[in-house]
Amino acid sequence: MFVPAAAQAQDGPAIAPATGGPSVAPEEDGYALWLRYAPLEGQAKAALERFDPRLAPVSAISDPTILVAMQELDRGLSSLLERPLAAGGDANVTLDCTSDVTGPEGSYRITGAASGIAIMAADPRGCLYGSHALLRELSLGTAPGRISLDQAPAMPLRLLNHWDNPDGSVERGYAGRSIFDWWHMPGRSDPRMIDYARANASIGINGSVVNNVNASPLFLTPRYLPKLVALADAWRPYGIRLYISARFSAPRDIGGLGTADPLDPQVRAWWQAKADEIYAAIPDFGGFLVKANSEGQPGPQDYGRTHADGANMLAGAVGDRGTIIWRAFVYSAEDETDRAKQAYEEFVPLDGEFAPNVIVQVKNGAIDFQPREPFHPMFGAMPDTRLMLEVQLTKEYLGFASHLAFLAPMWEEVLDSDTGRGGNVAQVVAPAGMAGVANTGSDRNWTGSDFDQANWYAFGRLAWDPTLSSKTIAREWAAQTFSRDPAFLAASVPMMLDSREAVVDYMTPLGLAHLMGTGHHYGPAPWVCDLGRPDWNPCYYHRADKGGIGFDRTAGGSNALAQYAPDIAAQWSDPAAMNQDYLLWFHHVPWDFRTRSGRGLWEELVARYDRGVAKVDDMQTTWQSLSPYVDPQRFRAVSEMLAIQRQEAQWWRDASLAYWQHVNGLPLPAGAAPPARDLKAYQALEFPEAPGE
Amino acid sequence: MFVPAAAQAQDGPAIAPATGGPSVAPEEDGYALWLRYAPLEGQAKAALERFDPRLAPVSAISDPTILVAMQELDRGLSSLLERPLAAGGDANVTLDCTSDVTGPEGSYRITGAASGIAIMAADPRGCLYGSHALLRELSLGTAPGRISLDQAPAMPLRLLNHWDNPDGSVERGYAGRSIFDWWHMPGRSDPRMIDYARANASIGINGSVVNNVNASPLFLTPRYLPKLVALADAWRPYGIRLYISARFSAPRDIGGLGTADPLDPQVRAWWQAKADEIYAAIPDFGGFLVKANSEGQPGPQDYGRTHADGANMLAGAVGDRGTIIWRAFVYSAEDETDRAKQAYEEFVPLDGEFAPNVIVQVKNGAIDFQPREPFHPMFGAMPDTRLMLEVQLTKEYLGFASHLAFLAPMWEEVLDSDTGRGGNVAQVVAPAGMAGVANTGSDRNWTGSDFDQANWYAFGRLAWDPTLSSKTIAREWAAQTFSRDPAFLAASVPMMLDSREAVVDYMTPLGLAHLMGTGHHYGPAPWVCDLGRPDWNPCYYHRADKGGIGFDRTAGGSNALAQYAPDIAAQWSDPAAMNQDYLLWFHHVPWDFRTRSGRGLWEELVARYDRGVAKVDDMQTTWQSLSPYVDPQRFRAVSEMLAIQRQEAQWWRDASLAYWQHVNGLPLPAGAAPPARDLKAYQALEFPEAPGE
Repeated sequence: MFVPAAAQAQDGPAIAPATGGPSVAPEEDGYALWLRYAPLEGQAKAALERFDPRLAPVSAISDPTILVAMQELDRGLSSLLERPLAAGGDANVTLDCTSDVTGPEGSYRITGAASGIAIMAADPRGCLYGSHALLRELSLGTAPGRISLDQAPAMPLRLLNHWDNPDGSVERGYAGRSIFDWWHMPGRSDPRMIDYARANASIGINGSVVNNVNASPLFLTPRYLPKLVALADAWRPYGIRLYISARFSAPRDIGGLGTADPLDPQVRAWWQAKADEIYAAIPDFGGFLVKANSEGQPGPQDYGRTHADGANMLAGAVGDRGTIIWRAFVYSAEDETDRAKQAYEEFVPLDGEFAPNVIVQVKNGAIDFQPREPFHPMFGAMPDTRLMLEVQLTKEYLGFASHLAFLAPMWEEVLDSDTGRGGNVAQVVAPAGMAGVANTGSDRNWTGSDFDQANWYAFGRLAWDPTLSSKTIAREWAAQTFSRDPAFLAASVPMMLDSREAVVDYMTPLGLAHLMGTGHHYGPAPWVCDLGRPDWNPCYYHRADKGGIGFDRTAGGSNALAQYAPDIAAQWSDPAAMNQDYLLWFHHVPWDFRTRSGRGLWEELVARYDRGVAKVDDMQTTWQSLSPYVDPQRFRAVSEMLAIQRQEAQWWRDASLAYWQHVNGLPLPAGAAPPARDLKAYQALEFPEAPGE
Repeated sequence: MFVPAAAQAQDGPAIAPATGGPSVAPEEDGYALWLRYAPLEGQAKAALERFDPRLAPVSAISDPTILVAMQELDRGLSSLLERPLAAGGDANVTLDCTSDVTGPEGSYRITGAASGIAIMAADPRGCLYGSHALLRELSLGTAPGRISLDQAPAMPLRLLNHWDNPDGSVERGYAGRSIFDWWHMPGRSDPRMIDYARANASIGINGSVVNNVNASPLFLTPRYLPKLVALADAWRPYGIRLYISARFSAPRDIGGLGTADPLDPQVRAWWQAKADEIYAAIPDFGGFLVKANSEGQPGPQDYGRTHADGANMLAGAVGDRGTIIWRAFVYSAEDETDRAKQAYEEFVPLDGEFAPNVIVQVKNGAIDFQPREPFHPMFGAMPDTRLMLEVQLTKEYLGFASHLAFLAPMWEEVLDSDTGRGGNVAQVVAPAGMAGVANTGSDRNWTGSDFDQANWYAFGRLAWDPTLSSKTIAREWAAQTFSRDPAFLAASVPMMLDSREAVVDYMTPLGLAHLMGTGHHYGPAPWVCDLGRPDWNPCYYHRADKGGIGFDRTAGGSNALAQYAPDIAAQWSDPAAMNQDYLLWFHHVPWDFRTRSGRGLWEELVARYDRGVAKVDDMQTTWQSLSPYVDPQRFRAVSEMLAIQRQEAQWWRDASLAYWQHVNGLPLPAGAAPPARDLKAYQALEFPEAPGE
């Protein structure tokens, strides 16, 4: 299973690079992400050679952002050409960072001609984004003279949220430890912090919240300020602003106060002083992200105040220097209401009460990053509040890093959803932005698996332009990350586009949700019904019994449907007519319910589980055919992950069916294979070392 | 502080390797360890070119160990030459693995001549070690014709002990997460597992205990067996046998038995079956390492049995297939005896009672891996028991990865110690071996800092040949890892040799011990005196008061001195005449005690603290002068670590002196700088995220 050094040596040249570099290091380990700038071949190479790119000397440049843009161009162009760029002579790749290009910060225009390529922007960040865009186009094989782009970011905030803790652990992290070495900062520099910034800049990400929303107050202590300064200084040239998650009870935890009541003058003064302390050291500090009164976190409700009271108090402390991002992911153990309704009920009445520099961050769906959820009903329901879309790059509920699931189609599904209230989700969040819960870690390939890099890439691209198709994004990423060979792309892109649907099919088909194992969320556990909080139990979500399955969210049930605009609610009110992908999310139906496929519900359910497993078979077959295009180490790594996914897809299918049969007493449809083991065997499985908790 | 990609790009060629390898990856990140095989220059290169090494084709070779030996030779020789080896013609580098070379397994002979180099051994492992030895000699610049070696390992077991847990955490680990991906094994292969085996084979390490001695019973469950098989299969060609730490209470924890009493027939049957299960899957499984009845771990004493009862029961289960390694690191909270005496008192009476395949593993000193301890009195005191020496590569008590401390001098000090009972420590452990608590982790450079790689290297080399000098080992390592330039070696080797003494001076001079912070062991905390267990308190060890300082272990005190052979005890009985490095380990003396330097104790103490800090100044100066010889990234990394070490050395010195002054009320000697802060400030420091616990 482990590949001997022998084979590794045979994979690549036996000779160490003349740089004296590591001769044992594999030649492709994924560290370079999509910034490999793999040498061009054929016509594309000839075209770039003919163009013979020349840059102006960087010596005179003082702006650090323009400097790194020029250096990235030098690195990328010379790598694509496999030769240093010609020095001297007139530059034919030029940056004009004080041009009259209009649009928000970061907008740029590229005009390519045989005579030269001009990157124009009204600010240095636009030049940086334009430089990366040029390198992307060239990496895809576009001829220099044919490149013409006019781009502006669709939303101001494009942020990663890291659920990373001071001790280096990462909540819901599946790629090793945190990439942030808080222990050695600021004394120690880590080249990863620079490559992280380069990768983000290349896709337009302009901010990073560096610590877990379940926040340690350590990040607000004086000892941590120099560490934060070191990161902010390192990232500034790349246009990345630093944010931190703030623990609402910090005035009590570390401030020596007896309360954290947002209306208490001492509390307000403490936060004001803390904000001033941070801004004195980090003038472009982004602001605070807050998870309050949710899953045990402290918040304003501890003092009888509202979310608006809490958010506005912090907003006053940072003033126009920064932003308060307040999470809407709240639900209460005491609250008997359908969990899917609680965030809406708590926040919508507060519409209009939030300060202008407050943004409310709303997850894509009303439960919690499931393989598929209908869009969150809050979108469109708070016209007088800026709402930000939160999606999860790390695959907490989609098989961890081991399952290949390209998430752009899921996010595209949400962004394109018509809220029925004057726009789709993308339009609703345009004044605010998007946040992605990061999937980065200390693993050499950054994200635990090679294909998870695509979710980082897709997040940045969609936050820049939510109208991009998943297919376009998949092509861009696959071509830059693996191979621009048309045959490779023709096979790998469809595989990526279908991969998330496969997970939905073998984990939670037909609108089922939250059936994962307790705590770690690894593997199937639809039978769990004994947890302290009702809404932590899978049985709370599937409501399966002899008579049927599904959560009745119609007027006859929790009526969560009524939180949507009437037109939208209407689409989902009739189980027979509606999109069956959401069927059991909104309806409890009998096992013999006739689905739109013509099959009964039970038959349809089994068919979808089987379809999911079959899709993984297809992915394995497809990948095996792509070995000529991929270096041996990454090819092997992906193959091994697909084998794990195939096993676990079967496990999901078999364990789920064993349980549903236990509930409904129905025989399997003709032709369906019986589960490999009996229910008890699946129920007995334990994974005490499952990562991510 | 973080270095922009720009600077990184300037460090190396801007062009990506033609392999299409990562263009953002730094050219030297430490991953290659000492196996860089950096291209030769000048005469050495000319000599090897003249020799024109040619290998026999590997196609016919079936033995996997000989195969990897040949492949390592191909990789190394071609890297040293910067060209592929000539194919065809008669081979002039030959392996004879069935020769009449005598000696234990792994012995080899190398005869080099202008006409050819022959590596001879009686077994494949000898050929593997010989191949690495040849590459080492060539890497050091020795001419092929001049290489003549006749080597045999000094001890049979040369093992790494990993204190790694199933969840990926590492107890006392300062290099990131565990290198073992238990979560994805056996499905996923990690090239690090092969490079780890290559590195170990290159220095003669022949076994690895892969989990923490504070052992999870998971490693004995059926779910883990395929993971262990995968590792054992991967390592077998490299001569690495797999061992695991066994939790003594496993029959109760996972076996469904009501007891773990080693004399209970069901318990014996359970272990027998478990051993048979493991050996059926891993025929060359090394055996079990056991930490019993120590620091809360279960053991035979829980059932009124002795350590011998427990060890012998397990020895019976593995039989002649493997070894039981039983740790002597035991001490009890209830026991009022000087902790330094407890292991001796528990084990020496059992001499002769252990089964032949049991080894008792004894730490280098009687307390716990302190910067300096006298050798453990058990060495030499159990003539009828095989004793193994346990040292710690990971620097739990020596500043973690941030402090440059080359530990070969410490281990040499112990190995060369005359036990006064017919041999030095090296001779005592020769029939058994050495164990090193590993310092490996997921950090790209393996050990958290570049210079900590030297401790891994030194451990292997000393276990192979304990008569090697620290200087020889330092030269070998530095030349292979950084530069073989004589000027580089002339400066870096002395710096390494003096580095451990610097730590002793600024942390625990004159025989002081265990003054580190509670739990994490980070930083100075001599004032701590309130912990539950007396022998967890620094004040227990230094016993400082107005009248004096030090632990009286003479007849007038705990009389631990009497555990040593009379001749040895005599050397340490007179505080005025003895080696002052052990003074306060064995004696409580007044502050005005006249030391051999002629200075009073207080003046001598202050002088040693200052000497330690000054040595770090010198290390920084030396390193700054070496930038011409080291690639920019590793040069920067080492510089940053030295800066951290300098700060912390000052902190150790200042905080310690502030506390001693608080105790003795004495003024600082003339010329000594006062501590930067007052005692309370040092006492108030907290490090909740300190690594390694």
